[in-house]
Amino acid sequence: MSTENLRVVGRGIPKVDALELVTGRAKFAGDLKFPGMLYGYARRAGIPAGKIRSIDCSAALGLPGVSAVLTSEDIPGPNIIGILPPFDQPVLASQVVRYEGESLALAVADSREAAKRAAAAVRVTIDPLEPILDIDTALKPDSRRIHPDGNITFSKKLIKGDVEKGFAAAEVVVENTYHTSFQEHAYLEPETVVAVPGGDGRVTVYASCQSPFHIRGHIAANLNLPASRVKVVQAYTGGSFGGKDDVATEIGCLAAVAAVKLQKPVMIAHERGESIIGSNLRHAARIHYRTAGLKDGTILARQAKIYLDGGAYASESPFVTMKALIHAAGPYHVPNVLVECTAVYTNKTYSGAFRGFGVPQVTFASESQLDELAAELNMDPLQLRRNNGLQAGQATATGQVFEKSVGLLQTIDRIAERREQIPAAAPGEERWLYGRGYSCLFQGISNGAEGIDVVGASVQVSQDGSVLVGVGLTDMGQGSRTVFAQIAAEVLGVTVDRITVRQVDTDSVHDSGPTVASRSTTVGGMAVYKAAGEVKASLVKMASLMLKCGEEQVRLEENFAVLTDNPEVRIPLPEVATAAYWTGFPLMHLTFSRAPDAQFDHETHQGNIYIAYNFGTHLMDLRIDRLTGRVEVLRHLAAHDVGRAVNPLGVEGQVEGGALIGFGMAHLERIEHEGGCIQNANFSDYGVPSIKDRLPTETIIVEDHNPTGPYGAKGVGEPPVAGTAAVFANAVAAATGVRFTRLPIRREDILAALEEQ
Amino acid sequence: MSTENLRVVGRGIPKVDALELVTGRAKFAGDLKFPGMLYGYARRAGIPAGKIRSIDCSAALGLPGVSAVLTSEDIPGPNIIGILPPFDQPVLASQVVRYEGESLALAVADSREAAKRAAAAVRVTIDPLEPILDIDTALKPDSRRIHPDGNITFSKKLIKGDVEKGFAAAEVVVENTYHTSFQEHAYLEPETVVAVPGGDGRVTVYASCQSPFHIRGHIAANLNLPASRVKVVQAYTGGSFGGKDDVATEIGCLAAVAAVKLQKPVMIAHERGESIIGSNLRHAARIHYRTAGLKDGTILARQAKIYLDGGAYASESPFVTMKALIHAAGPYHVPNVLVECTAVYTNKTYSGAFRGFGVPQVTFASESQLDELAAELNMDPLQLRRNNGLQAGQATATGQVFEKSVGLLQTIDRIAERREQIPAAAPGEERWLYGRGYSCLFQGISNGAEGIDVVGASVQVSQDGSVLVGVGLTDMGQGSRTVFAQIAAEVLGVTVDRITVRQVDTDSVHDSGPTVASRSTTVGGMAVYKAAGEVKASLVKMASLMLKCGEEQVRLEENFAVLTDNPEVRIPLPEVATAAYWTGFPLMHLTFSRAPDAQFDHETHQGNIYIAYNFGTHLMDLRIDRLTGRVEVLRHLAAHDVGRAVNPLGVEGQVEGGALIGFGMAHLERIEHEGGCIQNANFSDYGVPSIKDRLPTETIIVEDHNPTGPYGAKGVGEPPVAGTAAVFANAVAAATGVRFTRLPIRREDILAALEEQ
Repeated sequence: MSTENLRVVGRGIPKVDALELVTGRAKFAGDLKFPGMLYGYARRAGIPAGKIRSIDCSAALGLPGVSAVLTSEDIPGPNIIGILPPFDQPVLASQVVRYEGESLALAVADSREAAKRAAAAVRVTIDPLEPILDIDTALKPDSRRIHPDGNITFSKKLIKGDVEKGFAAAEVVVENTYHTSFQEHAYLEPETVVAVPGGDGRVTVYASCQSPFHIRGHIAANLNLPASRVKVVQAYTGGSFGGKDDVATEIGCLAAVAAVKLQKPVMIAHERGESIIGSNLRHAARIHYRTAGLKDGTILARQAKIYLDGGAYASESPFVTMKALIHAAGPYHVPNVLVECTAVYTNKTYSGAFRGFGVPQVTFASESQLDELAAELNMDPLQLRRNNGLQAGQATATGQVFEKSVGLLQTIDRIAERREQIPAAAPGEERWLYGRGYSCLFQGISNGAEGIDVVGASVQVSQDGSVLVGVGLTDMGQGSRTVFAQIAAEVLGVTVDRITVRQVDTDSVHDSGPTVASRSTTVGGMAVYKAAGEVKASLVKMASLMLKCGEEQVRLEENFAVLTDNPEVRIPLPEVATAAYWTGFPLMHLTFSRAPDAQFDHETHQGNIYIAYNFGTHLMDLRIDRLTGRVEVLRHLAAHDVGRAVNPLGVEGQVEGGALIGFGMAHLERIEHEGGCIQNANFSDYGVPSIKDRLPTETIIVEDHNPTGPYGAKGVGEPPVAGTAAVFANAVAAATGVRFTRLPIRREDILAALEEQ
Repeated sequence: MSTENLRVVGRGIPKVDALELVTGRAKFAGDLKFPGMLYGYARRAGIPAGKIRSIDCSAALGLPGVSAVLTSEDIPGPNIIGILPPFDQPVLASQVVRYEGESLALAVADSREAAKRAAAAVRVTIDPLEPILDIDTALKPDSRRIHPDGNITFSKKLIKGDVEKGFAAAEVVVENTYHTSFQEHAYLEPETVVAVPGGDGRVTVYASCQSPFHIRGHIAANLNLPASRVKVVQAYTGGSFGGKDDVATEIGCLAAVAAVKLQKPVMIAHERGESIIGSNLRHAARIHYRTAGLKDGTILARQAKIYLDGGAYASESPFVTMKALIHAAGPYHVPNVLVECTAVYTNKTYSGAFRGFGVPQVTFASESQLDELAAELNMDPLQLRRNNGLQAGQATATGQVFEKSVGLLQTIDRIAERREQIPAAAPGEERWLYGRGYSCLFQGISNGAEGIDVVGASVQVSQDGSVLVGVGLTDMGQGSRTVFAQIAAEVLGVTVDRITVRQVDTDSVHDSGPTVASRSTTVGGMAVYKAAGEVKASLVKMASLMLKCGEEQVRLEENFAVLTDNPEVRIPLPEVATAAYWTGFPLMHLTFSRAPDAQFDHETHQGNIYIAYNFGTHLMDLRIDRLTGRVEVLRHLAAHDVGRAVNPLGVEGQVEGGALIGFGMAHLERIEHEGGCIQNANFSDYGVPSIKDRLPTETIIVEDHNPTGPYGAKGVGEPPVAGTAAVFANAVAAATGVRFTRLPIRREDILAALEEQ
């Protein structure tokens, strides 16, 4: 793949759908209207654990405007959902309550208000059970089993080298236990779906979602219909961050069952409280960590024991467990590693996918350890990281060796250069404590050995030379639509304004799995690249016939086919496309792109798991008001190796957005439970960062060409979260001299620590 | 392609969408509703020719409920539509009126009634011109030019051998001039479209239509948008028969322009009168014909001069001209042929595609000639046909030689067998005249050399083993959806209930051109066959891994993968599909299928034009009431060589439906013009056959394997029209002894002829 003379890839451009988005024309699921549309509202358990004795819908059914109240008996299929085995979640619970947000019945009425009133009027009798609310209780052998197979959702070990030997040889050891809290995705658009029964025996579900194919499978199963009768269309989606996977399936099934039963369109749109209580959170974690080193700073061994609170259902706990396991030792060359990671069930809102997938939690712990080691050794923490930083040819914790695109040291060096130019802010002021922190991180790109990594993409060139691109991965705001447009434009030599990237639906491309793991640009972009290349071949062949030259003499650029030797000889692309059509050359192609096979041992977690890693180094300067604990971030540098920035503006957006989520996790956000019930299920009491909390993030793009991505690109969606969460903790420690082991580190925590000092 | 042991192909099954259709659940375009939807109604010229002086919309705009009144100035693009070059029709006329149905303005309002009132309130000033209303006037050198290049739309010659020599050697010559009338398609659902502006910068047009890709191109051009921004979805379509090509483009453009301008959904639904006046008809024809033979019945030469009245715009006149030209000499081995065919412009509703495409007209003339020749020679007319009937290895009029699938003689023999068993009804009754007629016919399958013959199809297998099929050709009632389902089911070894054939849209498959020329089963079916075969390969590969056997040992049938040697060893297909998905085998494929290249000389019309012909022989027994002229069809046998009947029930439906259209053309239907204006634009005055006119058609299926079609199939959509029109005329001639040279032969025509006798 030539990366010379790129015209479109590498240029920072606004999102291709920016106009629709800023004018409000873009239709989100909640904007959709269908004649006769009804509204669904779920009756939830309201207590964290219990046995359901009865669900009486008669009173609710009598209320005005109510069309139906569905219970589990109305579900034609198995009444089971879940991301992957174990499929352990009912669509509507009928016997056991495992968390307060458990849906028991769905009221359907001609307005949201009527549906909500009806849901409240459902008479539910539940015998409460003592809820299991923490990891240790869950793990006690005699604890009540939340699920039949016990309270361990998933438990895995990673073993590299001999960690005992490593610690035996250590000259210095640091050890600590870290905690992180549940975090809410807090997308601006709560979860919404509309199911529309078709006149053709099919059902179409428009969803604010992340993984339409996943949803389709569950809806079909629960409707007891062939999957080919169900079409899921991703509506414009106002953020997801991993949060609209399980829940979109749940409400997608509910809406579809209601729609088919009533033969009317049914919308379910969560309120904010439902969104927080009734959909997955980021796993709270407890991480015991120790690191062994020599006095020169060489890391010999690292060991971590991680517990994740998975809440009531498995959701993505298996994947998050794996990601935590694989990333726990950090982006370093560590010969001996032992990581154990266990996700457990508790009677709380379930945990699942959230941008970073376990990596922010372990990166916070690992990077805290690095700073603790540097302090112990009295070394420059950045230098310590550089000394141990992973390089091309060295093995990761899973034993995977990349020969290319290991840009960690470049990100460290870019940060090191910059810190020479910027003084750490003046210390010694009466009121302010100043601190500078560092973090390094890596994050695996692609599903890799965790699943199957396939993406379908189609590229269709019309006779007017315009291009329609379809991909099986969703743009939830991250800008992948723009990246796909740029790649197609680059390959086909057309301008971006001639490209349309259409909404994802399950009918028109291969099941592409979930849109996760920062894989859109890398795996999805490669699919677009390949599909466009096939169509390009037709255009070049046609142009060579028209220009009477060899195919190698044809260049497509700026909507023209150009004779390479004499660029003044050129034919407008629409003429070429029209001629190609009438000559019978194919102008549409559907690609099935599959990431290279992972060779991986699921026992030891050794092997080649991902097609690439994103590497990063962050620097943060902040100051803390001694009197109030208020933290002001003064500077935030985030250097990331993205292989190739297809759209540098988009990379900046991803880094800034990810940074804010990491900052929220590190400083502001904490789900508060009381007796298993969430106490702050609203944006007043839950401290989601607002526009005023925007960080002064400066993105430093490092491009270490990745051979597995289109034009060398690799993803950057998740990595900034981990980097920012970790760097904040280290900067606060630098400012205060206090090592905080629990996220979030809130203003009151800092104040308390300072007072204790 | 093995045709042994077929399980699904060859079985007569009800339409896969029968349930939706008979329950009324199927949503036709007029059933669609969108919030805020407006309605468009066109103001038409009302006179057949004139110069437009002014169009004043102010009064119309002031009426209640009116949102806009569009004129040509509101069309962002070139304001031109048309099937193919010459693109000669405006979307909204601004200068010249060429026929009474010319649209001048579109009123858009919040109800159809309000829009209609507003359209009537548009003040139009037109300076009338003397209309040109017949072929001879149009062809006069000094006639006013209806279009800038004159009044000849398209004119071509077919030359095979030396026709003069043939006539010089003749022992007998018959010669006559035949006329056919304009015919209305008379589908039950008039033309309807709804254009919906999307929130994503795109426009979706739902259309009752035949050729969505064609429509898309014109809408995009007239909106001045890239084609990739326009999506056309075929709604359930209640008949088309060629009639929803041009007009769907016209109203599609109008609705889309209005929808984008007003940013609201806009529906245009024709009333019956608009449907008749404002969309194309079957060409009226005048055919001068002579046939030269020997006394033994050998045909030496045939010559025809055909004029087609094309009305105001070109539409499909070029194609109809070609089809008439190519089929004029009939399905016979004729060494010398000269056919000239000319389509002309007149100031009448334009003529265009109509099931049969010129073949019914020339078949009526040609088969009348055959009977006239038989009478002259005193030969059995069926034997005369058999003696001259085309056989494998003999050249058609275009010089094309088929080595296979030339089943004409088989159809003749099947009819000959049957007539032995059935007496011609008792003659000599006082009141009734009895007659038996015959016709033979052929009809080219595929676009062939007339255009490009490509079809896109996609087949997607989900993890549950269900199958989604998409094809770029439309089912307008002919049952192709069922045929495609059967082919996919056969290839993939699944039951038909696991197959869904989705609505056609322009996003998801290759531009497949128009759905015409009886090519759905042959070319479209082949595309499905190929796409399904690709997916089958993945399933077989996976099953062979699971069954631990060679791929050749795996058979897919009845939703199982079966070990051929031991059929008790089998795995349910959903398990195979799920495993294939997770192993990374592709389960979706998009095919681009292209008919073999035609080698054709467009000067002489010699060469290989079609990939196959359908051949047929009809027999009709009828009786005529001497007193009233009433005709009763007593028996109608229609033997057709369809290569392979994928769905014999569907073949019967096509033959019965086509027969009724041919019967209407031959006996009942005539568009009546007065001063260029249609006088019977309604179903009371226009004699469309009703359910009471249903013929006692009996379909005799002949299967002469066609190597270019899936499982040997070839199309049957159009051929029965020609066969029935021709056989009716011959049966009437047999009964009355009067050769009628003008269609329709109505009751009053028969009565007048009998009285004259």
